[in-house]
Amino acid sequence: MTKRWAITVEYDGAGFSGWQRQRESLTVQQVLEEALTSFCGESVTLHVAGRTDAGVHALAQVAHFDLEKDTDEQTICGAMNHYVRPHAVTVLSAREVAPDFHARFSAQARRYRYIVCNRKPPLALMRGRAWHVVAPLSLDSMRKAAKLLHGKHDFSTFRASGCQANSPLRTLDSITVDQQEDLFVFEAQARSFLYHQVRNMVGSLTLVGAGQWNVDDFAQAFAAADRTKGGLTAPADGLYFMRVFYDSH
Amino acid sequence: MTKRWAITVEYDGAGFSGWQRQRESLTVQQVLEEALTSFCGESVTLHVAGRTDAGVHALAQVAHFDLEKDTDEQTICGAMNHYVRPHAVTVLSAREVAPDFHARFSAQARRYRYIVCNRKPPLALMRGRAWHVVAPLSLDSMRKAAKLLHGKHDFSTFRASGCQANSPLRTLDSITVDQQEDLFVFEAQARSFLYHQVRNMVGSLTLVGAGQWNVDDFAQAFAAADRTKGGLTAPADGLYFMRVFYDSH
Repeated sequence: MTKRWAITVEYDGAGFSGWQRQRESLTVQQVLEEALTSFCGESVTLHVAGRTDAGVHALAQVAHFDLEKDTDEQTICGAMNHYVRPHAVTVLSAREVAPDFHARFSAQARRYRYIVCNRKPPLALMRGRAWHVVAPLSLDSMRKAAKLLHGKHDFSTFRASGCQANSPLRTLDSITVDQQEDLFVFEAQARSFLYHQVRNMVGSLTLVGAGQWNVDDFAQAFAAADRTKGGLTAPADGLYFMRVFYDSH
Repeated sequence: MTKRWAITVEYDGAGFSGWQRQRESLTVQQVLEEALTSFCGESVTLHVAGRTDAGVHALAQVAHFDLEKDTDEQTICGAMNHYVRPHAVTVLSAREVAPDFHARFSAQARRYRYIVCNRKPPLALMRGRAWHVVAPLSLDSMRKAAKLLHGKHDFSTFRASGCQANSPLRTLDSITVDQQEDLFVFEAQARSFLYHQVRNMVGSLTLVGAGQWNVDDFAQAFAAADRTKGGLTAPADGLYFMRVFYDSH
């Protein structure tokens, strides 16, 4: 009898052309689906909570799939981790879920982190893991601007042109900015995000942090609900899919 | 007139066969010396505070060298960072130092960090950045054992066979163990360390943490002053050269 499984996955985005399968380049979905096929002989399709772009990392991405093979959580984890080697992706856990569970549509909230390394010298240890911003950033002014993003708004200013969502309205549950030495860490949580929303919000927040914009400029750009009024898109390297929340599952 | 310069360097050890120049494989020393030669045309030799092994990382390694070229701190930094690309090494700062300054021999103390990732699934984001230990570790018992290492002792139990030091006596100024979720972070500081001393201490401490040894077993192995009584050598991946302290420079 077919059972539905959900796996929690960590990956280093640097080695992949994002989550979603592509014809000519390696993706996380492909590596995991091929591992499942090697394990059980079935052709399996993964459905993911958050389709991340090339270079974006994940600490606890969630995906579900159906298997006919009679197996258990430990075996799925162990087998998948065996077959995904040597790629920088790992299955942290697997569990059986209800037949109507959907990694994407059952999600109540998603949380992303964005890391900026703010210093003059190029990155060595944080290369591919953070956005390198040279201009000195002010934590205080970025926090003031970030506060404006809380709650339900039209986020068109931070919506990439390729976005397929029906509406630009989103409710941002929280957005925080913290500083640890030369690292600025942004965390944002919402039921769902527009395409590139986190990267676009961070791009504009750093303009405020660097003093190119003041908080009023940011407020006006946001209120314009127009992407052409927004700042740059922060690169994928600094973005981490942190976790996804489900109701009773 | 020849001037002496000291640079502070960060690198990801994964891409290098350690610090010291070798005939057939890439090292941090080679990359930095070649960058200096490209910059000033002089043949330059770097002297380093801590010669790290292959795979060991550095957050603030220090090296000195002499240059005839008339230049300044900003120019050295910028030029070296230009020429070291695309390698994962970066010059954080440069400063002119006294002619008798020696990165290795003037050092008053060195600090290392060692990171253990303690979980069952393989590493993805921390791959090459931490030692993957599956057996659950006890922070409390590792802290008890680590306390025994404080102060002046014969560290032969944690001394690699290739060690060229005259004496196995060392004074450990501090050694701490902290836990952040599934990461255990060891930090050790001393005027100098024996070869592989940090990795060997951590290897034995994890035996205590995993319950294979109790604290008495650790104390006996340490007191034996005999490497064959010690535990395994922790791999290079988890080791970070944190910083080096100088007197008045």
